[in-house]
Amino acid sequence: MSLALSLGRRGLGRCWPNPAVGCVIVNNGRIIGRGVTAKGGRPHAEVIALSQAGGMARGGVAYVSLEPCAHHGQTPPCTDALIKAGVSRVVAPLTDDDPRVSGKGFAQLRAAGVQVTTGVLADQAVLAHKGFFLKVTQGRPMVTLKLATSFDGRIATANGESQWITGPKARRWVHAMRGTHDAVMVGGGTARADNPSLTVRDLGVQHQPVRVVVSRKLDIPTHSILAETARDIPIWICHGTDADPDVCRKWADLGARLFPCDLIGRQLDVASVLQNLGNAGLTRVFCEGGGALAASLLNAGLVDELVGFTAGLALGAEGRPGLGAMGIDALNDAPRFHLIDTQNIGGDVMHRWGRI
Amino acid sequence: MSLALSLGRRGLGRCWPNPAVGCVIVNNGRIIGRGVTAKGGRPHAEVIALSQAGGMARGGVAYVSLEPCAHHGQTPPCTDALIKAGVSRVVAPLTDDDPRVSGKGFAQLRAAGVQVTTGVLADQAVLAHKGFFLKVTQGRPMVTLKLATSFDGRIATANGESQWITGPKARRWVHAMRGTHDAVMVGGGTARADNPSLTVRDLGVQHQPVRVVVSRKLDIPTHSILAETARDIPIWICHGTDADPDVCRKWADLGARLFPCDLIGRQLDVASVLQNLGNAGLTRVFCEGGGALAASLLNAGLVDELVGFTAGLALGAEGRPGLGAMGIDALNDAPRFHLIDTQNIGGDVMHRWGRI
Ligand SMILES: NC(=O)c1ccc[n+]([C@@H]2O[C@H](COP(=O)([O-])OP(=O)(O)OC[C@H]3O[C@@H](n4cnc5c(N)ncnc54)[C@H](OP(=O)(O)O)[C@@H]3O)[C@@H](O)[C@H]2O)c1
Ligand SMILES: NC(=O)c1ccc[n+]([C@@H]2O[C@H](COP(=O)([O-])OP(=O)(O)OC[C@H]3O[C@@H](n4cnc5c(N)ncnc54)[C@H](OP(=O)(O)O)[C@@H]3O)[C@@H](O)[C@H]2O)c1
Repeated sequence: MSLALSLGRRGLGRCWPNPAVGCVIVNNGRIIGRGVTAKGGRPHAEVIALSQAGGMARGGVAYVSLEPCAHHGQTPPCTDALIKAGVSRVVAPLTDDDPRVSGKGFAQLRAAGVQVTTGVLADQAVLAHKGFFLKVTQGRPMVTLKLATSFDGRIATANGESQWITGPKARRWVHAMRGTHDAVMVGGGTARADNPSLTVRDLGVQHQPVRVVVSRKLDIPTHSILAETARDIPIWICHGTDADPDVCRKWADLGARLFPCDLIGRQLDVASVLQNLGNAGLTRVFCEGGGALAASLLNAGLVDELVGFTAGLALGAEGRPGLGAMGIDALNDAPRFHLIDTQNIGGDVMHRWGRI
Repeated sequence: MSLALSLGRRGLGRCWPNPAVGCVIVNNGRIIGRGVTAKGGRPHAEVIALSQAGGMARGGVAYVSLEPCAHHGQTPPCTDALIKAGVSRVVAPLTDDDPRVSGKGFAQLRAAGVQVTTGVLADQAVLAHKGFFLKVTQGRPMVTLKLATSFDGRIATANGESQWITGPKARRWVHAMRGTHDAVMVGGGTARADNPSLTVRDLGVQHQPVRVVVSRKLDIPTHSILAETARDIPIWICHGTDADPDVCRKWADLGARLFPCDLIGRQLDVASVLQNLGNAGLTRVFCEGGGALAASLLNAGLVDELVGFTAGLALGAEGRPGLGAMGIDALNDAPRFHLIDTQNIGGDVMHRWGRI
């Protein structure tokens, strides 16, 4: 099961709108098939593992990191494939929250005489499928927020110098984390200030996450890396319903996909932004700031995981803050997270936190 | 040697102006004496361990966490005691930087026919004696700077609420760290705003570090915990040479010890503050802020160890910054530290950094 889960995790960022599932088929103590949900979500892990196993699957055990699907979607149900292959037992950590599956997969297997064991390493599976479950239950992707700062919480000097605060190893980690998410998201401020490319680099990764920019009036330079690469790597823009149609058309012509979102006051409603992204199939979004967008997400209670990198240098109070204004007067009103893990990454402190 | 070092570390914060030394005497594979430099620095570890060992020390090995002293100070030299006891061999990590000892201890032992082995766990010993070595070589104590902040580097909400950002375990750690330093130091701003007691609490610790306040004109309320406890636990005030003599007298009458320090512009010269504290015998000072004093120490390159506690809550840009203004424009000008250790302490991230 541990192997099935780790196979599944390899699919994170590449399987949306489907969950990243891992499957291992064992017979007579030998692994005869392994599968991960393929890029784009199809074929499913079970089908890949079964085709590897071939006839040897008969009488074997299938370890699957999520309840096998029981419905005819764009692929036939995996339960059928498992039954047809003659698997005698299926081991899975937990029930799929997707209402089209939710318990039906296990029921069909049992009805066909396949033994079903659940609950194995369920806590790990909950983490691995967090984004997918949020999408099927709340209609929005999971949000990971990253913040890389100096020892005193600054992201740049007063006059904007920010390259580099953290070291090369931490920056590689960030690229690896981008790769395990379906999309990388930034606010308009960052798109304007940094002319970022928001791609996964230097890791031999073929697959690129979608790039999402949140800007009410699509106020992003069209002479920018984002605009110039829009045909090669998807760029999605979440804008206000009041955006200028001409500007929208210009970006659509450049190759961007546009999502009109609701407003709250003069800013985009981040809940509406995330609903739009969920509707479009995203399960895991990696937000890299800037401070204003990060503050909005935190204030709206929409950050599921927080990842900090703290570097060993001090910039002082004039340095630029990592989070924008949040309007918090009482400590009790501050969004709180629990520590998952802290590690030394090439001389910077990496700390991961989960929603409480 | 590992045991001698850990015995020595127990003495940190209590032995100044002397180094905190540990000594273990072994004969025939049995530990027959252990000692730590006593409170106030006397008697020395070797003498305590030898008196435990008694006649059994003859032919034994003495593991000492620092070169034994060779001079007549307020106690007779430890080398004499070791030679007289008939110890056959002395194992020590390194030479004492104190010019009164520096190599002479080992030379005297060798001259008396005692075998001497050095270099064992020298890196650990360098850390343990850092404060003492700084005092004898540079005349100032080592400075540990602590900063406890939210995820985004804030120490309080906009309207000043700061209790509690970190959890009870982290706060106990801070008390334990106070206990391993000779003094706890704060700026006048913190003394005025927080009415702190700066004592070690809830750890069954008898010994209290000296409390140091840095305030040019002794602008600290005399109706304060610090003033009211000045007779019980030492309070030292570093003030400007231009302070009002009447105010100085008032604090002296309350029981405070006063240190006139040089000025740089309108503030105290922190280098002069530390020289004064070194002259008075301090080897290890734990600075707990506030932001202005911390920024001055960092800018002057006088912070030897940096200890951060990061809590899992976000306060936003209006929150009070942990470090004051530092006037840094270029990242290259920012003081940098290397990561020693990071740990989860009761749900907060503790990170320790050393001067590069
Ligand atoms: N070191 C790091 O980790 C890091 C990472 C990222 C960014 N940065 C720095 O951060 C700076 C940019 O940060 P920023 O705070 O100015 O901008 P930002 O958060 O990237 O973007 C803010 C902009 O997003 C748009 N927006 C729409 N709805 C919003 C909402 N509900 N909440 C917040 N923003 C919303 C607005 O632009 P429209 O007017 O277009 O709608 C707003 O001005 C840059 O200097 C960049 O270098 C540093
Ligand atoms: N969460 C935490 O970890 C933590 C810890 C400590 C403090 N705090 C908070 O920090 C706030 C106080 O911080 P602060 O920055 O205002 O004051 P501060 O750093 O404690 O003290 C600054 C004062 O120290 C004196 N000073 C003399 N020479 C100095 C020099 N070279 N550099 C800097 N200061 C010098 C000056 O007072 P004179 O005019 O008297 O000379 C100056 O106003 C309080 O609100 C407190 O609650 C939080």
